[in-house]
Amino acid sequence: MNEFEIIRTFFQDPTKAHAGVILGIGDDAACLKIPNDHELLVTTDTLVENVHFITTWDPYDIAWKAVMVNLSDIAAMGGKPCFASLALTLPKPDLNWLARFSEGFHAAVHHYEVTLIGGDLTKGPLSLTLTMQGIIPEGKAVKRSSAKPGDSIWVSGELGGAALALIANIAPHDKKTLMNKLLRPIPRLDLQTILQTFASSAIDISDGLGADLGHICEASRVGASLYIDAIPLHPLLQKYQKDNAAYFALIGGDDYELCFTIPHNQETSFIKAIKTAHLSCYKIGLIEPNPDFHLIDKQGKVHVYTPQGYQHF
Amino acid sequence: MNEFEIIRTFFQDPTKAHAGVILGIGDDAACLKIPNDHELLVTTDTLVENVHFITTWDPYDIAWKAVMVNLSDIAAMGGKPCFASLALTLPKPDLNWLARFSEGFHAAVHHYEVTLIGGDLTKGPLSLTLTMQGIIPEGKAVKRSSAKPGDSIWVSGELGGAALALIANIAPHDKKTLMNKLLRPIPRLDLQTILQTFASSAIDISDGLGADLGHICEASRVGASLYIDAIPLHPLLQKYQKDNAAYFALIGGDDYELCFTIPHNQETSFIKAIKTAHLSCYKIGLIEPNPDFHLIDKQGKVHVYTPQGYQHF
Repeated sequence: MNEFEIIRTFFQDPTKAHAGVILGIGDDAACLKIPNDHELLVTTDTLVENVHFITTWDPYDIAWKAVMVNLSDIAAMGGKPCFASLALTLPKPDLNWLARFSEGFHAAVHHYEVTLIGGDLTKGPLSLTLTMQGIIPEGKAVKRSSAKPGDSIWVSGELGGAALALIANIAPHDKKTLMNKLLRPIPRLDLQTILQTFASSAIDISDGLGADLGHICEASRVGASLYIDAIPLHPLLQKYQKDNAAYFALIGGDDYELCFTIPHNQETSFIKAIKTAHLSCYKIGLIEPNPDFHLIDKQGKVHVYTPQGYQHF
Repeated sequence: MNEFEIIRTFFQDPTKAHAGVILGIGDDAACLKIPNDHELLVTTDTLVENVHFITTWDPYDIAWKAVMVNLSDIAAMGGKPCFASLALTLPKPDLNWLARFSEGFHAAVHHYEVTLIGGDLTKGPLSLTLTMQGIIPEGKAVKRSSAKPGDSIWVSGELGGAALALIANIAPHDKKTLMNKLLRPIPRLDLQTILQTFASSAIDISDGLGADLGHICEASRVGASLYIDAIPLHPLLQKYQKDNAAYFALIGGDDYELCFTIPHNQETSFIKAIKTAHLSCYKIGLIEPNPDFHLIDKQGKVHVYTPQGYQHF
């Protein structure tokens, strides 16, 4: 199969496209309609073999994860995902690999009502770059740079499970549970309207809570105090990282929950809104005026903390 | 330097951004405003080391070329380029390489008034994927699929120069001229309004005139007759490929001129418009109802032709 036959066979999707697609796969560029009174969100993530995934992963999972990490970036802006372009680089046209990869890819984009609008297929070391477009009502994008001192800091779910999947000596049954956290993160698009309405800033937790909250603090020129015991932990952390569970959750990446801030005067309405929506969010700290990062332990003791996340280089 | 320092040092651009950029580099996603009554164009191209460029290329040229091939796709739709996302994968953070690459990248995007709005930086075998967004007035995108029998076929400039650069036994002075064609293709954005107004279909010539006109024919379910002697040739083809010049131009890729079709009843106005704009375009054939591809030689003899372009696999 040549490049064009591969695209036709595995990537052209006969199912109904997103209403905004005027022209999809198969031209020099896709042509899309963005609704009036909306802005366009664009995010890009690359997954490289032996860096972001290993050769033994099911190609279905690689595709699924690529879609989810991009969706999570759109979720962190409070946006609605719509379109995706896939740049896929393959050493050879392995049809079994492509069949499984495209199955995972289509399942993932269909589940979130996103349409594949184009991309590129090239020969080379295995990697994929996905660029995703979403929309958001004018002026409603939730930035990293708008957290203010006095805002409370929240996370959308339990942390540390995905990172725990990569640790040695996990019992097979637990390993399965944890690998599912790592391979099938759920982008928090369910918080879309709530973030648009109440959040002063947001980020998705890909590098670890500490590092990602650090990005909010840096962009907003503020600091943070985190109550260690308030960080919601994956239940298996208690079993495998008992003495270290909160620090593990602070450093471990790949959870794709959201971390966001709520202004003090919005907090009551926000709590009411998440209750009404049957969602659980966890208040874990406070934005501070000075650009330091403090951890406050059970005894009320304050520790200075320097956020660290995954470093590519 | 870590990932974030590299982005800050080499890719954040303090110069004025495109008016549509609400939020650029540094958040989970960029946020952009598309003017009302316009549609969004999106195109993606990947360049892989040892496939699309070789290690000895100046990183300035690699960046320049990546920008130009994406601009050319927007040009082929009749659109105006605005924004770009860069996904760059590097084996190691070579600061000299990055300095030269980013110099070429910024020079290229500034020249065409495009703003870098985000991307991703990852570790792995050298490759880059650029996704470019452009805009076009509603309903004006020039597709591949709308060529009609009786339309005339045009190209926007001389062909074969870029491919000739890769041939052995070229004199050093000529090699320099030809490498410039290969490394610094000029996307035909100057034809924007004329294509929107007159063209029934268009494509950019990246895989070779034969293959790319073949894509128009396939998408439009038509055929084509090409007058071999009418194909405009790079002047050096006469010197190095005398007996074969037209076929060489037909097969050789990387010229990034445009091939487009003009309905019969628009031809007089189109010719007037290109004269007024001081542009040269070349009429090379006719769209035919039957899905065959014919070459007509100087003697009027008709040859059946099967388009072939670069095959990745």
